[in-house]
Amino acid sequence: MSHAPSAALEQRHRAVREHLITASVDALVVTSLANINYLTNFDGSAAIVVLTAEVVYFLTDSRYVTTVTQAQTTPSACPAFQLVLVEGSYDATLAHLLATRGVGRAGFEAAHLTVNRLRWLESTLKSVAAPVELMATEGIVERGRVVKDEYEIAVFRDAAHRLSNVARDVLASVRRGMTERAMAFAIERRMHEEGFSRPAFETIVASGPNAALPHARPTERKLTEGDLVVLDFGGVYDSYCVDLTRTVCIGRASRRVREVYDAVRAAHDVAVASVGPGQSRFAIDEAARNRLTQAGMGQAFGHGTGHGLGIDIHEDPRIMRRRPDVDTRDEFVTPGMVFTIEPGAYFPEWGGVRIEDDVLVTGAGVELLTHVTTELREIH
Amino acid sequence: MSHAPSAALEQRHRAVREHLITASVDALVVTSLANINYLTNFDGSAAIVVLTAEVVYFLTDSRYVTTVTQAQTTPSACPAFQLVLVEGSYDATLAHLLATRGVGRAGFEAAHLTVNRLRWLESTLKSVAAPVELMATEGIVERGRVVKDEYEIAVFRDAAHRLSNVARDVLASVRRGMTERAMAFAIERRMHEEGFSRPAFETIVASGPNAALPHARPTERKLTEGDLVVLDFGGVYDSYCVDLTRTVCIGRASRRVREVYDAVRAAHDVAVASVGPGQSRFAIDEAARNRLTQAGMGQAFGHGTGHGLGIDIHEDPRIMRRRPDVDTRDEFVTPGMVFTIEPGAYFPEWGGVRIEDDVLVTGAGVELLTHVTTELREIH
Repeated sequence: MSHAPSAALEQRHRAVREHLITASVDALVVTSLANINYLTNFDGSAAIVVLTAEVVYFLTDSRYVTTVTQAQTTPSACPAFQLVLVEGSYDATLAHLLATRGVGRAGFEAAHLTVNRLRWLESTLKSVAAPVELMATEGIVERGRVVKDEYEIAVFRDAAHRLSNVARDVLASVRRGMTERAMAFAIERRMHEEGFSRPAFETIVASGPNAALPHARPTERKLTEGDLVVLDFGGVYDSYCVDLTRTVCIGRASRRVREVYDAVRAAHDVAVASVGPGQSRFAIDEAARNRLTQAGMGQAFGHGTGHGLGIDIHEDPRIMRRRPDVDTRDEFVTPGMVFTIEPGAYFPEWGGVRIEDDVLVTGAGVELLTHVTTELREIH
Repeated sequence: MSHAPSAALEQRHRAVREHLITASVDALVVTSLANINYLTNFDGSAAIVVLTAEVVYFLTDSRYVTTVTQAQTTPSACPAFQLVLVEGSYDATLAHLLATRGVGRAGFEAAHLTVNRLRWLESTLKSVAAPVELMATEGIVERGRVVKDEYEIAVFRDAAHRLSNVARDVLASVRRGMTERAMAFAIERRMHEEGFSRPAFETIVASGPNAALPHARPTERKLTEGDLVVLDFGGVYDSYCVDLTRTVCIGRASRRVREVYDAVRAAHDVAVASVGPGQSRFAIDEAARNRLTQAGMGQAFGHGTGHGLGIDIHEDPRIMRRRPDVDTRDEFVTPGMVFTIEPGAYFPEWGGVRIEDDVLVTGAGVELLTHVTTELREIH
C-alpha cells in the first residue's frame, strides 16, 4: 500500500467528482491500476474502483482483503471506502454492483479498458432490470495525477535524493573489465540498500557500440578501454518512479567523445533552463534539439527529451517533438509537474551519450530533483 | 531479443495465417507486446506488428531500429520481416500502413486494444481513399502460445532447472533475524547469478502473520522463532517466466504448523498427479481443493491452484474453480501446456503455507519442471 494521507485522497476524490458532474455520469469505473493506486493507496495487482458521489467501492479478491482492511485502520485510510469481495469474475462482480446500486450512467476509462471488456459489460448491462449506460471518459484521473500534490512532491524529493546517492556511488564504482550485467546488478543492489522497493524499469548499462542503442539490455560484454558507458536506472519509492542517466568514459576521452558529450550536456542544460510555468512542452524539447542540431547531431537524437514521472515510469507530460499527425494543440507545463530531461546522441557502431535528470516545475521556474555532477567522468 | 529459431517463428506465423482465413481478414494487427515477442522475438517496450498472408510488417521507433536490424542477421531472424519506422505516432503510422497496402479488412486484438485506440483508428480509417474495416478477433496468437513448441519447452526445462538451483541455495541460506526485504534481495541476487534477466514478479518473502497474505510485499520484519516463511519467486529467462514457492519454518514446527503444511503438501501432490492430457483445468483445481477441504482448510484456500506460464507470468490455462457467471464451457489441458501448481492455506494473523512447482503436460501425463524437495525445512 502507498501512504498518501486520507486528506490527500479526499482531495483527489473531490477532483474526480467534479468531472463526474461535467461528464454527466453517476460514477466512474476505474480499471487502471495506477489510477486506483492514486485514488486509494492500493498497489496490488488486481482491483476495480467505482467512485460515486458518496462512496468508493473497492473490488478485490481474497488475496488482498487482509492488506486493504488493515490499511483502513491507518492515517492513509481511503475515505468513504466500501470493500466488495470478488469471488468469481471481476467484471461480473462489477456489472452486478452497477446494476444493483442505481448507477444509471457509469463512465469508464476509454484509454485503459479493452474493447473486449467493454463489449462484455455493455451486453451484460443491457439485459439487467435497471439498465446501466456506459460512457467513455478520458483522462479524468490522469488530469489530477499530472500535477503532483504536496504529499507526492515530498515523496519525489526524498526518492530523487536517494537516487542521487545511488548515482554517486555507482559513478565511483564503475571499473573496466566488469560486465554490463554485473554493473547493472550492482546498481540494483545499491537501489535496494537505498530503500527502493524495485527497479522502475530494466536497468540499462550499455557500453561501447551498445551505447548507440537507447534501450539496450545489459549483456556479458566487458567495459573496455575507450568505451562510452550509458548507465540509466530508476527505482520505485513508495509507489513513485524516479529515473537518472549518466554516461562515463572508460579511460581517457577522445576528442570526439568530448565533442559529443559536451553537446549532449549543453542540450541537457539548456532544456532544464527552459523549464518554467507556462512553458510549452514542445518548446522544452526544441531547446534540447536545437542545441544538438547546432552541433551537427540533430539526426543522432531520435527520441524525445523527456517524460512525466509518477506512479508510472512514463506518463504525461511528454516532452517531445510535436507530431503533426496527432498533436493538434500545444500543451504547457505547470507548477507541480515532474518529468525527466534526457537528451542523447547515438551513432551506430560508435556509441552514444545520454544525460538525464528529474525536474519539478515550480511557481518560480524549475527545481532540479536529482543532484549528481554532469562532468564527464573518465574511469582510470 | 528472444532466440526462437526462424523456423519456429515461421510455424507460429503459419498458425496465425490459418486463423486469418477463418476470421475473413486480410491481416492481423498485433498490439500485445507478449504476442509480438512470440511472433518476432522482439522483447522491447514499443512496437506494432501487422501480419498479412505474405509479410510481417514491424512498426517501431528509432530507439529499437539498430537492435531489430541486427537480429535479422541471426538464426533467429523473423521471416518475411519488413521494418516500418515510426517517426510520429504509432497508431497514425499503423493507419497509414493499412490504408496504403490494400488491407480491406484488418483483425485487431480485442483483448488488448483499448477502446480509445479502436475509436481513433476507426474514425481515421473511415475517411481514407480505400477504407479499412476493423474486425474484433480474440486469442488468435494466444491459441498458439498456450501450447509450447519444442524451442519453448527446451527454454522452460533450462529455466526451471536454474530456478531449482536458486531455490535449493535459498532454502539453505534462510536465517532467523534476516529481514524479509534482505531475504528477498538475496533471492534476486541468486537469480541474477543463475542467468535470469530479471525477476518475473515482485519477490515475496512473507513471515509470521504476513504469511497469511498471499501477495505480501517484503517488509523490514525479521524472521522470528516460530514463523512460517513463504518464499515465492520467479525469473525471466530468455523471455520466459518460471515461478516457484516453498514455505519454511523458523525453529521447530508446532503440531499445527505440521498439520497445515502436510495438508497443503498433500493438495500439491494430488493436483500434480491429476495432471495429464485431456484433464479438465477445473478438475485439477478441484483435486487440490478437495484435499484441503477434507483437512478442514477449504476456506483457507482462497486463490486458484495455478496459472499458465510463458512470456507472461500469468497466462492460460488458469487452473481454478469454475466461475458460474462466466465459465460456460470446460477446458482441457493438452501436451505442451506449462503451468504452476500452487495450493496454499492462509489464516489471518496466524500465517500461511504455499507450495508451488511448474509442470509440463506431456503425451504420457505430466513432467515436473522444478525439482526441489517439498519436505518441511526447519531453520535451526
